[in-house]
Amino acid sequence: MTSCKKCSKNAVVFLPYSGEKLCRKCFLNSVEKRVQKAISRYKMLKISDRIGVALSGGKDSVVLLNILHKIESKFLRSKLFIIHIDEGISKYSINNQKMAKKHASELDITFIQTSYKKIYGKTLDEVIKKAGEGENRRLGACSYCGVLRRKALNTTARETNVDCIATAHNLDDETQTIILNLLRGDLNRLIRNSPLPQKIHPKLVPRIKPLRTIPEKETTLYAYYKNLSHNSKPCPYTAEAYRDDVRFFLNQIESKRPGTKYNILNLYDKLSTKITINQNSIQECIICGEPSVEEKCKACQLLEKF
Amino acid sequence: MTSCKKCSKNAVVFLPYSGEKLCRKCFLNSVEKRVQKAISRYKMLKISDRIGVALSGGKDSVVLLNILHKIESKFLRSKLFIIHIDEGISKYSINNQKMAKKHASELDITFIQTSYKKIYGKTLDEVIKKAGEGENRRLGACSYCGVLRRKALNTTARETNVDCIATAHNLDDETQTIILNLLRGDLNRLIRNSPLPQKIHPKLVPRIKPLRTIPEKETTLYAYYKNLSHNSKPCPYTAEAYRDDVRFFLNQIESKRPGTKYNILNLYDKLSTKITINQNSIQECIICGEPSVEEKCKACQLLEKF
Repeated sequence: MTSCKKCSKNAVVFLPYSGEKLCRKCFLNSVEKRVQKAISRYKMLKISDRIGVALSGGKDSVVLLNILHKIESKFLRSKLFIIHIDEGISKYSINNQKMAKKHASELDITFIQTSYKKIYGKTLDEVIKKAGEGENRRLGACSYCGVLRRKALNTTARETNVDCIATAHNLDDETQTIILNLLRGDLNRLIRNSPLPQKIHPKLVPRIKPLRTIPEKETTLYAYYKNLSHNSKPCPYTAEAYRDDVRFFLNQIESKRPGTKYNILNLYDKLSTKITINQNSIQECIICGEPSVEEKCKACQLLEKF
Repeated sequence: MTSCKKCSKNAVVFLPYSGEKLCRKCFLNSVEKRVQKAISRYKMLKISDRIGVALSGGKDSVVLLNILHKIESKFLRSKLFIIHIDEGISKYSINNQKMAKKHASELDITFIQTSYKKIYGKTLDEVIKKAGEGENRRLGACSYCGVLRRKALNTTARETNVDCIATAHNLDDETQTIILNLLRGDLNRLIRNSPLPQKIHPKLVPRIKPLRTIPEKETTLYAYYKNLSHNSKPCPYTAEAYRDDVRFFLNQIESKRPGTKYNILNLYDKLSTKITINQNSIQECIICGEPSVEEKCKACQLLEKF
């Protein structure tokens, strides 16, 4: 049996990029420390922040909530809120909601809930059904859902008067997105993903990603070793072929050259401090008044089609 | 038979990213026009430039030489020079040299030749042999050769008093390098690859890449339809596993989503105009006096090991 690098117990986790072997307890500590480090490094939180945690009920969001709850409990003037959005994806959304509510009540955190139906008058199922088989369908359920969720999260967070929205994007999500935006040639979206909480428009609630330095494998292990219940079923619409290609490539490269995902994130962070977002490019949507880079926001453009 | 988009002849080439079908003549014209456009767009050349063409004798360099010769013949005050470097890779280098000399005499262009043996006192074969099987060998012949070629090309170009060095990097090379530097987290090397000819140190001859917008498939077709002889045998040391992984990924993505390589290049070009190189970071090597980002240049560091 190999022993833990930090104590004498049996190691259960191996981190290839650092060569560390860790026992259960030291591994959990290590993840929490790295989250705390990312929060400090990127100045994600202030001591009196009202923090909205985007909780879907999936693995990563449950891990995020639990770690943030642990960190936040040391700061008496801060306060956590859970923001849960019901996309309206038949059974999947119902299971998600159950999980989210369970964690909210276990940790005694205010649970704020909204839904696509309430905000847009349509569930995602209804949107997808109407999209049919034509060009609209081709755009993919994930890109519809992304647009609708981003807006729903922002308006709900603003109404709740939180200072920031914490989302559960991990290292894998972040590096995939960087590569995807590069392959799409989308400089604006590439830059917009900066790790620093940015107040680029008075109506836009800054977003933070405390798990952005944690590999997906480790959020999975964290949930497992902490015995955190979550909805482990994949979304029935998940079929993001492009992201899957990028995920496969990055995982293949990472297994050959451990640390590659960190290389990408570190380079991206250096780049994003050198390039600033043109704040004038954010205006208010002529239909709904929400912040938008175009005359009409993406959500209104999308809903107009149906 | 499908007919050419631009004339009535039979189409022989299909360009998936633009949807164009072209006959032999219109395809060759199209490649030449795009090279000319890249030269103008990135202000690669001035009308009275002395241009050093790095000619290995391989396909891309032969294509570059022929297109530049055609373009340059319209400018009476400019002059082309061929710079050929003999790496000393047994038969491979001998074949390359034959090809390079053949094209030089056919086009009646001054042929300047040097070799690793003359400059460094060692052929690449000797360097690789000495590197043996240890850690040095692992670094790969291509990375040794890259370091030695870069310096040899620069000093020879400077002695020839040319205003720039034209290299035959095509769209595939460029996009692979962008992704590789991202995966390695190497911001300096990422930025250094800018398309604009840059005079960042008095001893560094600016480098231009007129073929950077031409996909590798098209340089191959250009050589084929122009019947340009070249050394088609691969270098015996070619085994750049990392670049091969990236090449495979990019070709797979490009075949699914034609235009992806252009997306990457265009995004990179936008980025590189927003970020400038810190000129102070270039100093002179304490051993050879050549420009270097470190105290000792990479070539001197490498040769010191043997």
